[in-house]
Amino acid sequence: MSGTPSDPRRGLPIGVFDSGLGGLTVVRQIRRLCPEEDVLYLGDTARVPYGTRSPQTILRYSRTCARALVSRGIKLLVVACNTVSAVALDMLRAELDLPVLGVIEPGAGAAVAATRRHRVGVLATAGTIASGAYERAIAARSSRTEVFGRAAPLLVPLVEEGWLDGDVPRLAVERYVGALAEHDVDVVVLGCTHYPVLRGTIEEVAARALGAHARVVDSAEATAEELQAFLAARGLGATGVRAGELRTMVTDRPLSFANVAGRFLGHDVGPVEQIDL
Amino acid sequence: MSGTPSDPRRGLPIGVFDSGLGGLTVVRQIRRLCPEEDVLYLGDTARVPYGTRSPQTILRYSRTCARALVSRGIKLLVVACNTVSAVALDMLRAELDLPVLGVIEPGAGAAVAATRRHRVGVLATAGTIASGAYERAIAARSSRTEVFGRAAPLLVPLVEEGWLDGDVPRLAVERYVGALAEHDVDVVVLGCTHYPVLRGTIEEVAARALGAHARVVDSAEATAEELQAFLAARGLGATGVRAGELRTMVTDRPLSFANVAGRFLGHDVGPVEQIDL
Repeated sequence: MSGTPSDPRRGLPIGVFDSGLGGLTVVRQIRRLCPEEDVLYLGDTARVPYGTRSPQTILRYSRTCARALVSRGIKLLVVACNTVSAVALDMLRAELDLPVLGVIEPGAGAAVAATRRHRVGVLATAGTIASGAYERAIAARSSRTEVFGRAAPLLVPLVEEGWLDGDVPRLAVERYVGALAEHDVDVVVLGCTHYPVLRGTIEEVAARALGAHARVVDSAEATAEELQAFLAARGLGATGVRAGELRTMVTDRPLSFANVAGRFLGHDVGPVEQIDL
Repeated sequence: MSGTPSDPRRGLPIGVFDSGLGGLTVVRQIRRLCPEEDVLYLGDTARVPYGTRSPQTILRYSRTCARALVSRGIKLLVVACNTVSAVALDMLRAELDLPVLGVIEPGAGAAVAATRRHRVGVLATAGTIASGAYERAIAARSSRTEVFGRAAPLLVPLVEEGWLDGDVPRLAVERYVGALAEHDVDVVVLGCTHYPVLRGTIEEVAARALGAHARVVDSAEATAEELQAFLAARGLGATGVRAGELRTMVTDRPLSFANVAGRFLGHDVGPVEQIDL
């Protein structure tokens, strides 16, 4: 499956999908680490959030999103959503004839590499915590590392509201990180693709509550690092010298998506196309 | 349809349903105003939240819940959920052979009665605001009253986390009520059944931001008042002298429901039964 210098797949974009906006934090890291790659992003905004759906429904929605990207021509699929990564990754890998990366395995790997005390805290949505996906992924990499999950249900609405500075996000993060501090963790995994938008606050609070040696692991960044290594190892990286382009599609309300996307992406998203699934 | 003193329906409980916990704030007001009534509560915790579902799905879920209550014998159904009241009330009224009360119409009526400036603010979930249900219900009662909605997505997670005191809820409420103050409203409607748990904070903030004359209208309380008047007018009130009983059913995780229910109900909920729908 390794690409040659003339492998036509090299020129195809990387497909990325999420139920909504959060996956753009993964796109941001991909564009930082792999600036020459084209990215085709799909946010399934008509059916967001996935987190409260049954596994069967999540499987069905994920398959539809993946096929929409594959039919447009991509060389690799990134599932930029913790819920889908926890529930549907194996099915997508079995059904699709291309490489599929999720966000949980890279985040778990980065957490194991970062912890000195072998005690890792995970902040995520209630659904991801309940799924136990980070516990399993970390246990597969290090049998001696203990994992402590804490659902942080205020953080997604804080990010979507744009309440990123000041007392409200700081106090909320203090409460969540404080719950992890009781377990003496030295790593905090951002187990939801919304949370990197609050990374500055979370890092400040973690340094105070857990000590200056504490590390915040961003699953979005870890995923982009894994993608970069994967493309290099398989000879699938873009070979051109031009800057990669981002094309963005959503299934509902492209304007409201575009208005908020910059907060996740770090720059203006440009035109957003609406598609039907 | 009016009951006689010996009407056997008088002795039946009032059925109340919600997608989860929030409807217990309505139960609390019913038990305060109609203490002799038995209440049969159903929280559809297996499928919570409804707010992000399609109208078709909400209709289907609501029908199942309503039938589960009707099959157990109730004299009247209270839909203690703003989302279902906005989407499914007409369908339930058409299909069921008993009176059905929602929470939006009583809340809208109380808001129109309370406003002096004819400017009403509504705090609710994004789905209820987007539905325009309060605007329509208020317009049907007063053509001169302007309605200003503000989605308040942080308030449900604050209530479910139990963060009811201190800076985080106060600052969040200040931000939301402040957005309504720009429109010079003198009434704030609590348009989500979770919000009465934060009523104290909301009233304090409203008094400061909107003036001491400002009123906070609790749709849960307004619904119980309408129920009380309805039972009296139709001769359907319980005739016994004993205190009414509350029986509680959920579709998933009865223990975690019981642990949090007291926050909504104001007292311990007692045993919670799990049923399949």
